Amino acid sequence: MTETTQNEWDVIRFTKNHLSVERDEIATEYPLTIILNGEEFATMVCSPTNLRELLIGFLASEGVIRFIEEIDAIQMDQERGFAYVELKRPIKKEDQQDHSKRFIGSCCGKSRQFYFKNDVKTAKTVMSRQTITISQAFARMEELQNHSKDFIKTGGVHNAALCAPNEMITIQTDIGRHNALDKVYGTILEKKIPLDDKLITFSGRISSEVLLKVSKIGIGIVISKSAPTDLALKLANDLGITIAGFVRGTKMNIYTNSYRIHETTQL
Amino acid sequence: MTETTQNEWDVIRFTKNHLSVERDEIATEYPLTIILNGEEFATMVCSPTNLRELLIGFLASEGVIRFIEEIDAIQMDQERGFAYVELKRPIKKEDQQDHSKRFIGSCCGKSRQFYFKNDVKTAKTVMSRQTITISQAFARMEELQNHSKDFIKTGGVHNAALCAPNEMITIQTDIGRHNALDKVYGTILEKKIPLDDKLITFSGRISSEVLLKVSKIGIGIVISKSAPTDLALKLANDLGITIAGFVRGTKMNIYTNSYRIHETTQL
Repeated sequence: MTETTQNEWDVIRFTKNHLSVERDEIATEYPLTIILNGEEFATMVCSPTNLRELLIGFLASEGVIRFIEEIDAIQMDQERGFAYVELKRPIKKEDQQDHSKRFIGSCCGKSRQFYFKNDVKTAKTVMSRQTITISQAFARMEELQNHSKDFIKTGGVHNAALCAPNEMITIQTDIGRHNALDKVYGTILEKKIPLDDKLITFSGRISSEVLLKVSKIGIGIVISKSAPTDLALKLANDLGITIAGFVRGTKMNIYTNSYRIHETTQL
Repeated sequence: MTETTQNEWDVIRFTKNHLSVERDEIATEYPLTIILNGEEFATMVCSPTNLRELLIGFLASEGVIRFIEEIDAIQMDQERGFAYVELKRPIKKEDQQDHSKRFIGSCCGKSRQFYFKNDVKTAKTVMSRQTITISQAFARMEELQNHSKDFIKTGGVHNAALCAPNEMITIQTDIGRHNALDKVYGTILEKKIPLDDKLITFSGRISSEVLLKVSKIGIGIVISKSAPTDLALKLANDLGITIAGFVRGTKMNIYTNSYRIHETTQL
């Protein structure tokens, strides 16, 4: 099986009274079932790229692990869609009850957790003093957009990137918004990337679920070309996270903790 | 509490070197916990409009009910975000195990079910012989777009509509793609709308989860301004559903069961 986010399909294309049959690229939806310490844990639907990072980031998002060292082994049967993960310790009873055989849709990771219980427990106030300039925000967003070739082709994937103020560190793509962020989280854990000067750029809407994931990763700035929701903004206020949305061309809206985005380079 | 999909927020707007503080409209994310026969069943995040339709459609999507008559009473405590539903029968053990205290994110309903088990059981092949013309498809999509005022304002909601070939019957809006569809489903059940000549217009991506929901509702045509995924297309082939995507202006792609969309009115 090839690692790609798209597949081909014959499509009847209608354009201004003209019909044609063309081969088109379509976003791939790939179901991956996680077997944790020998037991079925969850099935997620995702783009079949960077599955190892996705797996690690997902387990961290779920609170199953906090460090890569807690994982003993990962075996991937990509053909049949199974990932076998062995932890160095038994699964906690409470984890298992919450997650057992849960289905994780392609567009939502939040279902993985019970909002008012686990999340508020694991979400942490971000203490980062990191700031960026407005032009850095525009530049990082433009970089994300330029990498969004799959999205332009198939219209079906989201991108999330970890950036330093002046460069993109890693970009991850998935049909699921949350999966793209989990792939970033997995990369951070695996490569042990320090986070104190980092920000997240994101192509999708900033919902409460996205915001909580950013807080779990521990990053103080998230910027998106899309809109935030009111609940995400309230949580961002509480958790000390800076949200900028509708970052497009030379326009942006700063919604929360605006002190982290300023006009010119500070002395 | 007012029934609205948006809320207000002070935002720092940056436009070409000019900073201003403006009052902006933001999409509302509203958590609703369903108490079914006295027991916590699920918490969903949604836009707080048409909650009754959402509730009915959600329970039908989950396979808990098939007809509105199975519900004895619905009480809504909108202020505190609780919906109390009494069925005329006890909850089945299997339902409860699958759904108990599950969290339903705003962007994904599929997590509500286990893809390979329940869904394939409840999904049905659509036998509809309904056809529409290409111009009807464009007209219905344009109608959906014209109603999408909230989306234009807040950039954060999705629309789904039930249409006859020549008119829109009901349009539903939600920050969650699946919620918008569930609100349509709930309206259909409550008003006992016959489906043999209907189609669904949709603003979001057609994923396998969206496609399965359309099949459960029992509709043969779904058209969207966005893209489908490969898994949705495979399922649509199997289940006899027509998918058209990227329906914009005078362009569209027909992906599956194209016989239901033809160029001119049939005699």
